[in-house]
Amino acid sequence: MENRAVVLLSGGIDSSVCLYIAKKQGFLPFLLSFDYGQRHKKELASARKIAEKLGLDIVVVKLKLPWLSSSLIDKNKSLFTREKIDTNIIPQTYISARNLIFLSIAVSYAEEISAKSIFVGANTIDFSGYPDCRDEFLESFFETARLGTKAGITEYPISIERPLINKSKKEIILLGKELSVPFELTWSCYKGEKKPCNECESCIIRKKGFSSAGITDPLS
Amino acid sequence: MENRAVVLLSGGIDSSVCLYIAKKQGFLPFLLSFDYGQRHKKELASARKIAEKLGLDIVVVKLKLPWLSSSLIDKNKSLFTREKIDTNIIPQTYISARNLIFLSIAVSYAEEISAKSIFVGANTIDFSGYPDCRDEFLESFFETARLGTKAGITEYPISIERPLINKSKKEIILLGKELSVPFELTWSCYKGEKKPCNECESCIIRKKGFSSAGITDPLS
Repeated sequence: MENRAVVLLSGGIDSSVCLYIAKKQGFLPFLLSFDYGQRHKKELASARKIAEKLGLDIVVVKLKLPWLSSSLIDKNKSLFTREKIDTNIIPQTYISARNLIFLSIAVSYAEEISAKSIFVGANTIDFSGYPDCRDEFLESFFETARLGTKAGITEYPISIERPLINKSKKEIILLGKELSVPFELTWSCYKGEKKPCNECESCIIRKKGFSSAGITDPLS
Repeated sequence: MENRAVVLLSGGIDSSVCLYIAKKQGFLPFLLSFDYGQRHKKELASARKIAEKLGLDIVVVKLKLPWLSSSLIDKNKSLFTREKIDTNIIPQTYISARNLIFLSIAVSYAEEISAKSIFVGANTIDFSGYPDCRDEFLESFFETARLGTKAGITEYPISIERPLINKSKKEIILLGKELSVPFELTWSCYKGEKKPCNECESCIIRKKGFSSAGITDPLS
C-alpha cells in the first residue's frame, strides 16, 4: 500500500507548505480540515481549492462546541487586542485545546486508514504564542496517542510530523516557493472578509514573512 | 465560584457512578456526552434522563467522523466476534481514539468554564481491553493537556479524575448503590434496541457485575 499520511490543512500558509512537504516526501496525503465556527470560514474554501488543485480528497469535520468564547469565533469581540505580538502572552484569539482536538481526530482518521503519520504545520518562531503549537506539546501528544490507540500499542505509533516547527515565517515562505505552493489560494486573515484586513495578528505575521522573504504576497 | 468539574457521561453504569462520585465530592458537574454515530444512541437518552434527575445541564456534542468502521457504528457488522473476553486483545467494537477525542473536547469545555477537573469513568478490571481506558494513557493525557492549554501552562493543570480506574464491576455497582445511582435509567447494551440483548460484551460485563454484587439489574 502507498505511504499514507493525514495532513491537517487549514488553508493557511503553514499547513499548505506542510502538505507540499508531505507530498515531496512521497506520502499520499489525506486532508483534514475543521469547521469549528471560525470567523474566517473562508480558509476552508482555500483548503478545498488547494485539495482540488492537487486532486486530493478533503474531509471537513464540523465541530460545534457551544462553550467557545474566543474572539476568533465571536464576532462581537475584537481581534485586535494588543499593540505588539508577545509570544509569552496568549492572545484572545486562543481556542481552548484546538490542536489537541484536531490532532486527536486526526489520529482516529490515521488509524482507520492505516496511515502511519500525521503532518501538522505548527511552528514557533513567528507565531502568536499558542501553547498547542509548541514542540513539547506535540511530543507529549505523540506519546499519549501511542498509548491510547490500538495501532500504538500493538503495531506502530502514529508519528506527528512537524517539519516547520523551528522555521521562521520567512523560511516557510521561501520553502513554499521552492515547492510551488499556490500562495494565491491560501488564506490567513482572521476576519475572513473579501480582502485581508492587514491588521489582525495572522495578517501581520504573514505580511512580515513575505516581506522578509522578498516575495510579493499574491493576496496583497 | 463553586468547584466545577466536567463529567463525561455516556449514560452507562460507569460514567453514572462517576458522576455521583463527583457530586459527593462537592463538585458542580457540567455533563458532556457525544453522539458519534453509535448504534446505541439510546445511551444518550439515558444520559439526558440522569442529567434531568439531577437538575443538571448536559451538552451533547455531535461528531461525524466518516472514516469510523467499528462494529459499534456499522450495523452491518457483528457485535459478537469472540467467545470470551480477553483484555489483551482489542475487539471490533474499538473506536479509534475515542477517549482521546472525548477527553480533548472535555479539556476545551473545562478550560472555558474554569473547571479544574474532568471526571471519566474509565476502569480496567472488567473491561473490553480498549487501550484508551488504561491508566497510563490517562496519565499521559493529563500531561499533554497541561502542555497544550493556556490554563495548563499559566494557571492550573486540569486534572483527569478517574475514581473507578482500579475497581471491578462488582465494586462499581456496589458503590453506585451506596450513592443511590439510578441504575434503572442507565443503558449499556451496544445493540440499543428496546431491551438489552444480553449477548454483547457490554451486556455480559454488566450482567456479571450485578450478579457478583448480588443486586438485581432493574433492566433485566
